[in-house]
Amino acid sequence: MAVGASVQHEIDQLYLDLETSDLQPLWTQGPALQPFQPAPRTKAWMWEWETLVALAQRAGKLITIDRGGDRRVLSMVNPGLGGLPFITPTLWGAIQYLNGHEQAPGHRHTAGAVRFVLQGEGTWTTVNGDAIDMSPGDLILTPSWHWHDHTNESDDAMVWFDGLDLPLVYMLEAGFFEPYPVEELQPVRGHNLSEKLYGNGTAPIGPEERDVTAPLLVYRYTHSDRRLSALVEMGGGPLVGIEFLNPLTGSNAIPTFSNEMYRLVPGSRTMPVRKVGNSVFLVFKGSGTSIVDGKRFDWRQGDVFVAPSWAAVEHEASEQADLFVISDRPIMQALGIFRSETLDDHQEEVSTFSGHDS
Amino acid sequence: MAVGASVQHEIDQLYLDLETSDLQPLWTQGPALQPFQPAPRTKAWMWEWETLVALAQRAGKLITIDRGGDRRVLSMVNPGLGGLPFITPTLWGAIQYLNGHEQAPGHRHTAGAVRFVLQGEGTWTTVNGDAIDMSPGDLILTPSWHWHDHTNESDDAMVWFDGLDLPLVYMLEAGFFEPYPVEELQPVRGHNLSEKLYGNGTAPIGPEERDVTAPLLVYRYTHSDRRLSALVEMGGGPLVGIEFLNPLTGSNAIPTFSNEMYRLVPGSRTMPVRKVGNSVFLVFKGSGTSIVDGKRFDWRQGDVFVAPSWAAVEHEASEQADLFVISDRPIMQALGIFRSETLDDHQEEVSTFSGHDS
Amino acid sequence: MAVGASVQHEIDQLYLDLETSDLQPLWTQGPALQPFQPAPRTKAWMWEWETLVALAQRAGKLITIDRGGDRRVLSMVNPGLGGLPFITPTLWGAIQYLNGHEQAPGHRHTAGAVRFVLQGEGTWTTVNGDAIDMSPGDLILTPSWHWHDHTNESDDAMVWFDGLDLPLVYMLEAGFFEPYPVEELQPVRGHNLSEKLYGNGTAPIGPEERDVTAPLLVYRYTHSDRRLSALVEMGGGPLVGIEFLNPLTGSNAIPTFSNEMYRLVPGSRTMPVRKVGNSVFLVFKGSGTSIVDGKRFDWRQGDVFVAPSWAAVEHEASEQADLFVISDRPIMQALGIFRSETLDDHQEEVSTFSGHDS
Amino acid sequence: MAVGASVQHEIDQLYLDLETSDLQPLWTQGPALQPFQPAPRTKAWMWEWETLVALAQRAGKLITIDRGGDRRVLSMVNPGLGGLPFITPTLWGAIQYLNGHEQAPGHRHTAGAVRFVLQGEGTWTTVNGDAIDMSPGDLILTPSWHWHDHTNESDDAMVWFDGLDLPLVYMLEAGFFEPYPVEELQPVRGHNLSEKLYGNGTAPIGPEERDVTAPLLVYRYTHSDRRLSALVEMGGGPLVGIEFLNPLTGSNAIPTFSNEMYRLVPGSRTMPVRKVGNSVFLVFKGSGTSIVDGKRFDWRQGDVFVAPSWAAVEHEASEQADLFVISDRPIMQALGIFRSETLDDHQEEVSTFSGHDS
Repeated sequence: MAVGASVQHEIDQLYLDLETSDLQPLWTQGPALQPFQPAPRTKAWMWEWETLVALAQRAGKLITIDRGGDRRVLSMVNPGLGGLPFITPTLWGAIQYLNGHEQAPGHRHTAGAVRFVLQGEGTWTTVNGDAIDMSPGDLILTPSWHWHDHTNESDDAMVWFDGLDLPLVYMLEAGFFEPYPVEELQPVRGHNLSEKLYGNGTAPIGPEERDVTAPLLVYRYTHSDRRLSALVEMGGGPLVGIEFLNPLTGSNAIPTFSNEMYRLVPGSRTMPVRKVGNSVFLVFKGSGTSIVDGKRFDWRQGDVFVAPSWAAVEHEASEQADLFVISDRPIMQALGIFRSETLDDHQEEVSTFSGHDS
Repeated sequence: MAVGASVQHEIDQLYLDLETSDLQPLWTQGPALQPFQPAPRTKAWMWEWETLVALAQRAGKLITIDRGGDRRVLSMVNPGLGGLPFITPTLWGAIQYLNGHEQAPGHRHTAGAVRFVLQGEGTWTTVNGDAIDMSPGDLILTPSWHWHDHTNESDDAMVWFDGLDLPLVYMLEAGFFEPYPVEELQPVRGHNLSEKLYGNGTAPIGPEERDVTAPLLVYRYTHSDRRLSALVEMGGGPLVGIEFLNPLTGSNAIPTFSNEMYRLVPGSRTMPVRKVGNSVFLVFKGSGTSIVDGKRFDWRQGDVFVAPSWAAVEHEASEQADLFVISDRPIMQALGIFRSETLDDHQEEVSTFSGHDS
Repeated sequence: MAVGASVQHEIDQLYLDLETSDLQPLWTQGPALQPFQPAPRTKAWMWEWETLVALAQRAGKLITIDRGGDRRVLSMVNPGLGGLPFITPTLWGAIQYLNGHEQAPGHRHTAGAVRFVLQGEGTWTTVNGDAIDMSPGDLILTPSWHWHDHTNESDDAMVWFDGLDLPLVYMLEAGFFEPYPVEELQPVRGHNLSEKLYGNGTAPIGPEERDVTAPLLVYRYTHSDRRLSALVEMGGGPLVGIEFLNPLTGSNAIPTFSNEMYRLVPGSRTMPVRKVGNSVFLVFKGSGTSIVDGKRFDWRQGDVFVAPSWAAVEHEASEQADLFVISDRPIMQALGIFRSETLDDHQEEVSTFSGHDS
Repeated sequence: MAVGASVQHEIDQLYLDLETSDLQPLWTQGPALQPFQPAPRTKAWMWEWETLVALAQRAGKLITIDRGGDRRVLSMVNPGLGGLPFITPTLWGAIQYLNGHEQAPGHRHTAGAVRFVLQGEGTWTTVNGDAIDMSPGDLILTPSWHWHDHTNESDDAMVWFDGLDLPLVYMLEAGFFEPYPVEELQPVRGHNLSEKLYGNGTAPIGPEERDVTAPLLVYRYTHSDRRLSALVEMGGGPLVGIEFLNPLTGSNAIPTFSNEMYRLVPGSRTMPVRKVGNSVFLVFKGSGTSIVDGKRFDWRQGDVFVAPSWAAVEHEASEQADLFVISDRPIMQALGIFRSETLDDHQEEVSTFSGHDS
């Protein structure tokens, strides 16, 4: 409909006055705010282990822990998120590097974290006084507002993946931070205490109140491996998986993001699945290929890649592979807005990930 | 510690290589990411009714519903949020204006919404076939993914406040949207059905599955007023309040944001309280003053103001006042990161809100 | 298989020795302990209003409250339960009678109770200081371990039905009892306070902790009637129903037994349904017929009848009827052992209830 | 107050008429129905292993499984419960005996059961197709309405303790029973499947719906022993304990009764504790003494004893002892009527249990 000049002038003046009054008309906004289906700014992306570990080693030589603040951490920057050091809108993904005989001092923060160990032995993370020994494939929790510090007593460097909900907490404007008072490190009450008390369906009875939010602080790869083997033996398809849960509630180990491990068996490709929520995949063992919205990712041990919300994702192992995965699905489920669907046909591959924006 | 020139060169080269590899060092980032306590970008801000209604009336004359997309909505823009039409990082606050004998067509979206009626009668919002009559002070829900349209059968314009979790859904990259198929409006099964079936602690028994997520779609001001009067009579202080809940679960009427109504009685000022999470206050009746982190807001009927996360907030009515309030506290509580505290002393007022950034 | 005499002797001796040792062999016990389907000792039974009220009136003249302990209560004795004053294995059903200007003194006990008012006005039950006015058709809660007393300020007698979980608490050996200290009656904080604060999906916000176990202590017949009328208008069949719930949790108003009201519309018979758990029906209004496992019950206003666990039950109103119903279904559901099924054909009536054991 | 003869006559007549009308006056009933504190009919009692095993062995020789119905079970009869084969009002306690190369055929029932293994190896219990190998100290679940049968492939007899909620289900008139159709034994899908999939805080992800009610069907003594040792090392007093929980919900492994294991360390006596609910103690290892409401029980390996509701209970080990304990506390907690208290002083011992009613 053509609008007369004088009406158009009034409309223009209205738009100017709205802006001055800190208002915006809904009707001039495009579909970006409410697309027909999720249209993520987050990009499907990959970081290769070779690059990650080489840069971490260089940082290990050049940057001391005290120079670098509390931690020697390289955070992965999703190129779709405007330069913020976030791997997805709600998740932080990073490589942390601790030289032999180094320590990272104690602190606590609102953001909850997990550590998935990639390389090294002889290190522990102390969480509220419980010194948790770390080995490759282990998952260690440092839940929201729990004191934590790291100690490497071995001669060799330690490398692990850090997963945090820091971007979510940042967006919610809800974050607190506190350095550990008095000393750099917490006193150690014992080693692997939570592991001694919880698991296998039992819990201590006692006068003290249980920490229901995080009774079990470590999930060992030896257990994960055994569960995944059993699932493969029991006839799981090309992909089987387990999730890491709070044994006193059955809900996610960390309330804000899921922690899962998949085992991929070579021989066939999974059907494409899409889910609401962004996912981060860390290759712990093996190699293979994933297709994310038509983009092909060839991955090997130590690589990290991202599948954005509602992207179709399919996987195929070239050799048996274990993938550790975090996603913000628990938030979607808590808010009642999670959806997923399996597509009927495999995707056509339209490009291969090259590390450059397509 | 001074660093030699060649080491500095290596460090500089490391930083360049990190950037090329889509990585950022944690140690060079300031405290913005993890401040000692919440440091919101969201600003304490106010929109005055006089301005809101005048602009809405001009839009009512100039913009037809079909020209303006589905809705004639003026969304409030918090000046701290980079120009996005969001009143807080997770909440959408807007004025919606519907002329006499106008209709706004049906659609549904992932974002959940509430409508708080400010002016007019003779209008209903149809939610999944239930036509809910709207009167000033009533709260009407259009929960996530429920079909909804609006019909004004009166001769006069209708004005209400829209509260949505759209910014949250947008940030989570989780939003779907769908126009109502076939016709513009849904067929009406009846008027105020949910109100006839739920409330007063009873629920129908029957073969059909209950809609546990949103059994009751409207909360009448007549009830709210009676509850608030009873609380004042029972000796509540300068401020009493009620929350609007799902009567089948006792949790928030909308899972992502709280809906509350406060009654302020003149004569004394509330003690300053700060809470994690952003809050939006809509003055339904009366007038008074609020101090938010030292900034003074003098408000009257129809005004809308924002208190950012962890800001100290105190209120004093100059005449008895009813404030409708939404906040993202339920998200904080679901994630286990809510905190609040009451301060011992009243704040010093350092400025008065003028509508210009201080 | 024939057993030789000497073996039989040894077996006999074994049985004697077992008895001496406080042991019983499982294999000699019949199917009573574990029948193929529930085989209740509880009998389908009815108490007629005419009888109930005449006996209550006689008690009202002959028995003073102080003579009769704390209460003038006639408890219904299901003839299948060995003489215990229980209407079903878990439920207590009784008529309570309070003369004009009488009071029943305060006490509290582990057993939870409801009062469903049959006759009279001008009486209140005070529950933890909240004086709840009672009118016919109202449901008043006196939950577990809440102080309660009754005051009749009118000139006329008051009659109500008492429903308690006392038999369950007795069987569990879990019961405590305490008379109200100091005075006979509690001080009254106000009338109908819970009703002023809860209902319609709202709850007070405040410094005091909410009584989540029983926020709302009364459910008015005016509301029940309106809900049932709406359900009938919306096309419910010969039977519609509502349940009385805790508005802060959506679970049963009393944790141990359900409280429901059915409205029966004349014209057709409901299909036979059987449920695990015993049910007690109190006719508040109207008249009709129910068939319980082939036994016919013709009921009128004020009658009380019992349907045992897993009995097929069908109803037909001869005039519009409202039935108040309590059952121990919540226990079955909490334990995961509830079942129900609707049968395809109406039952054959094999007998009519006569008040004498068949 | 003296009552005149004619009034007394009317009262007598009232009582007669009440009885004829299946009614009882509340005011003539003593405090048995509502005592000031629990007054259990259940007696503190003990069954000695020597007696139990000798009688079970005699039954093993004299009674074939087919002669004895499905099971060779000796149920413990609490002398306070009127001759019913119940160890407490809600719990069944029994010894089950399976000769070498015997099988007990499949069936299922509403009552839920646990098996705590006392003696033997080479036997499994198949639960819904999962063949669970049994060793001393292991706890095996056969939850409500799960198919189960037992197979002893060894040359030696197997003895275990059966704990069931059968008395509760019987009282609730809620029990169903079904023999396994077609064959005596279920087909075995595999051995120890639930154990391979659950425990240590992980759960499989998959298309099949999880059995949330009973994901984990066996709790090994090797784990229990390790947890109890850790608790003793961490400075637990004379008594430490663990409970056996559903790892997907954190609630009791069986909804109707708790399953716990205590370790008692010699050297001091526990303070007397009383709890609402009846408890059954099974001595798995060691020896010691318990005082239950002043009655002394000296126990050794294999003995079973009962502590009634609200009885004061204290324990002292003469050598390190492990006690497996079941109680109906979960029911009390579900109904909101659980209480417990620790007394300040040790009880005076007034008698020693002799096996004869005192």
